[in-house]
Amino acid sequence: MSTPLRLGIAGLGTVGIGVVKIVQMHAEMLALRAGRPVAISAVCANSRTKKRGIDISGYAWEDDPVALARRDDVDVVLELMGGENGAAKALVEAALKTGKDVVTANKALLAHHGNDLAQLAEGNGRKLRFEAAVAGGIPVIKAMTESLAANKITRVMGVMNGTCNYILTRMESAGLPYDVVFEEARKLGYLEADPNLDVGGIDAGHKLSLLSAIAFGTRVDFDAVVLQGIGEISINDINLARDMGYSIKLLGVSQMTGRGLEQRMTPCLVPETHPLGQLQGGTNMVVVEGDSVGQIVLRGAGAGEGPTASAVMGDVMDIARGIELPTFGQPIGSLTKAPPAAVSTGASWYLRMVLLDKPGALSKIATIFGDAGISIDRMRQYSHDDAHAPVLFVTHKASSDDLEVVMERFVASGVVVGTPMALRIEDV
Amino acid sequence: MSTPLRLGIAGLGTVGIGVVKIVQMHAEMLALRAGRPVAISAVCANSRTKKRGIDISGYAWEDDPVALARRDDVDVVLELMGGENGAAKALVEAALKTGKDVVTANKALLAHHGNDLAQLAEGNGRKLRFEAAVAGGIPVIKAMTESLAANKITRVMGVMNGTCNYILTRMESAGLPYDVVFEEARKLGYLEADPNLDVGGIDAGHKLSLLSAIAFGTRVDFDAVVLQGIGEISINDINLARDMGYSIKLLGVSQMTGRGLEQRMTPCLVPETHPLGQLQGGTNMVVVEGDSVGQIVLRGAGAGEGPTASAVMGDVMDIARGIELPTFGQPIGSLTKAPPAAVSTGASWYLRMVLLDKPGALSKIATIFGDAGISIDRMRQYSHDDAHAPVLFVTHKASSDDLEVVMERFVASGVVVGTPMALRIEDV
Repeated sequence: MSTPLRLGIAGLGTVGIGVVKIVQMHAEMLALRAGRPVAISAVCANSRTKKRGIDISGYAWEDDPVALARRDDVDVVLELMGGENGAAKALVEAALKTGKDVVTANKALLAHHGNDLAQLAEGNGRKLRFEAAVAGGIPVIKAMTESLAANKITRVMGVMNGTCNYILTRMESAGLPYDVVFEEARKLGYLEADPNLDVGGIDAGHKLSLLSAIAFGTRVDFDAVVLQGIGEISINDINLARDMGYSIKLLGVSQMTGRGLEQRMTPCLVPETHPLGQLQGGTNMVVVEGDSVGQIVLRGAGAGEGPTASAVMGDVMDIARGIELPTFGQPIGSLTKAPPAAVSTGASWYLRMVLLDKPGALSKIATIFGDAGISIDRMRQYSHDDAHAPVLFVTHKASSDDLEVVMERFVASGVVVGTPMALRIEDV
Repeated sequence: MSTPLRLGIAGLGTVGIGVVKIVQMHAEMLALRAGRPVAISAVCANSRTKKRGIDISGYAWEDDPVALARRDDVDVVLELMGGENGAAKALVEAALKTGKDVVTANKALLAHHGNDLAQLAEGNGRKLRFEAAVAGGIPVIKAMTESLAANKITRVMGVMNGTCNYILTRMESAGLPYDVVFEEARKLGYLEADPNLDVGGIDAGHKLSLLSAIAFGTRVDFDAVVLQGIGEISINDINLARDMGYSIKLLGVSQMTGRGLEQRMTPCLVPETHPLGQLQGGTNMVVVEGDSVGQIVLRGAGAGEGPTASAVMGDVMDIARGIELPTFGQPIGSLTKAPPAAVSTGASWYLRMVLLDKPGALSKIATIFGDAGISIDRMRQYSHDDAHAPVLFVTHKASSDDLEVVMERFVASGVVVGTPMALRIEDV
């Protein structure tokens, strides 16, 4: 077993640099643990001469990722370029077709093409691994596919976009409005070039779609993820939620229901006593629930050079050790095509609205709730100076369907100013 | 790959029953995920006729565990009997010698004989797996040996005895003294037949010694674990700690220092804002720190039928899938024999004592601190009715050596009533 495992690294950004550092720094430890050396044969990036703070002179250079994938001295291709199409996809396809195993950190690619790429890997008898694509350094893919393999997974939840959690917790701790904190995050370099990938929930939704496939043995179906960003969350919502013992999180939830597969990435209220509610800053958290194991919580850095490279190298070490598993934990042909659940599981709802301060307004609202069969758990009306009364309702369990009905009726009632804000209270 | 993996289960207590239930309930799912069926061939326990609520009539019965281990129709022996010597040890040895893989949930056995058993496994080309032995359903063994395999582990910490955490958090939430809650725990069946295994820190110490071996590539050395139980923790300590923003936990800490391997299982103060400080009730938590990944926190049920059986079956699934790894993540011969660190890493200390209420008492104490080079971060004296003044010091960082010196001098000072209470404040 002393044949070295030879890596070809495509992409020398933050993650690629982190991987090179680990291989250089820990060569002896990796060989001891893997039972064979792990070596880098070749690298590929946009610029050969860019200063990166690492010595890559000992590796062959390729300008073209596909050429890297086809090299005879490469056993495993690390796709660390990013992007859901184009070069990354061509690279992974070329690698699998030419008999290379692939490790990728690219959630967008897998969310959109994971089924096809897993099929290609399986058809070619190759491995396609992606621990780093979900929640950075947190070993959630391995935990779900291997450690919990004897569990029927009942629900997966996660805070998987550190930027959103940074924004929400910073709003809460500093009492600042969304726009101000968003600008802070932009200046700190926390936001993607297209910020909507972060604050629109798309990046986190990509990750959730991959966890769903493993959890429920279903084909990756990112298009079915219900996405709602954090842009509408006001400091007011955050404060009101906290007053009632909740934190607002951009929370991904995936569960199989009698009505199909429910996948949501939306702002939710969670109890501040639960680990999800306590999660501060850019840290990620994934909660996995299984029929035997109960609730497992995994917490760690969701991004950054070291954590992401750690996850990439965890996959590399598995390949070096000869560990073989289907991409999503079971043969690709056995993944079912689950219909998306049109209606989400019943939940309590946080409903904030502004009422015209006139006789009968509250009664109208109460009637709308009653007619829809939604009962009120808690209600608060806040003091106000003008003719507009801020009120807050927390409902007992109601379906998203029933909620939509009352939301429409509120708007049409003539006593509600603007659009009410509705947030799900996740039963964690 | 459609040859079934055939299990022989020794021990039909809580965990054994849980395993049988999973195999019976999820046969199809297990076969799909493992690529082959997982079946039970034979079982063995003390009483064949005991009511267990499961149907074992389809399995061969053995009265003698060693006979079970030698059966030709068994590929993997599950040692779920417990006990650090005797039948469990004989069973595991017989199984490995006759070419069977072994999965065990027995931390005591491995803490005492893990090196020899791993050697035996390796010598016979067999697997010895023990995910269930540490922190129940939490996949910490796999996370450390596989997911974090490219990290130099810098520290492992854990709350790994649910009974102790139940007692400490119940004392805090109900304001009850140790003795009362201890009795509650006994009545609830939370305590081992020998309660000192729990409250003396022995059980949790067993677990820590196994994590140390994986983390630092060292031979299992349970005898070197510094053990201190929770029996001396008073409700007063818990309240005083909380007043300063800390919780008291029976915390295991393992780290490699310049002075050797430090392994402690002792009551510590941890900040109530850290996940460790927030851990309530019987839940377990393991914190792993790696040079690349940073801090990873894993939380879940540390005991019970489902969670422990989930971990046992995770190992079984790995074996069914052909996953092969050395017992402690690297060849047994490469594990080093690290000297135990005689002095623990410097820390802040919580020091509670009762002073005689007479002039000069505090000055004497302050002088003892000063002479030992220990500086005080915070000090509080509490109001009192009699001649005894309760005082609390929080020191800046000091070594355990220096602390011992001042503790002796306090007792000899003539102004301290009884023995002062010293608790480490772990820098998490």
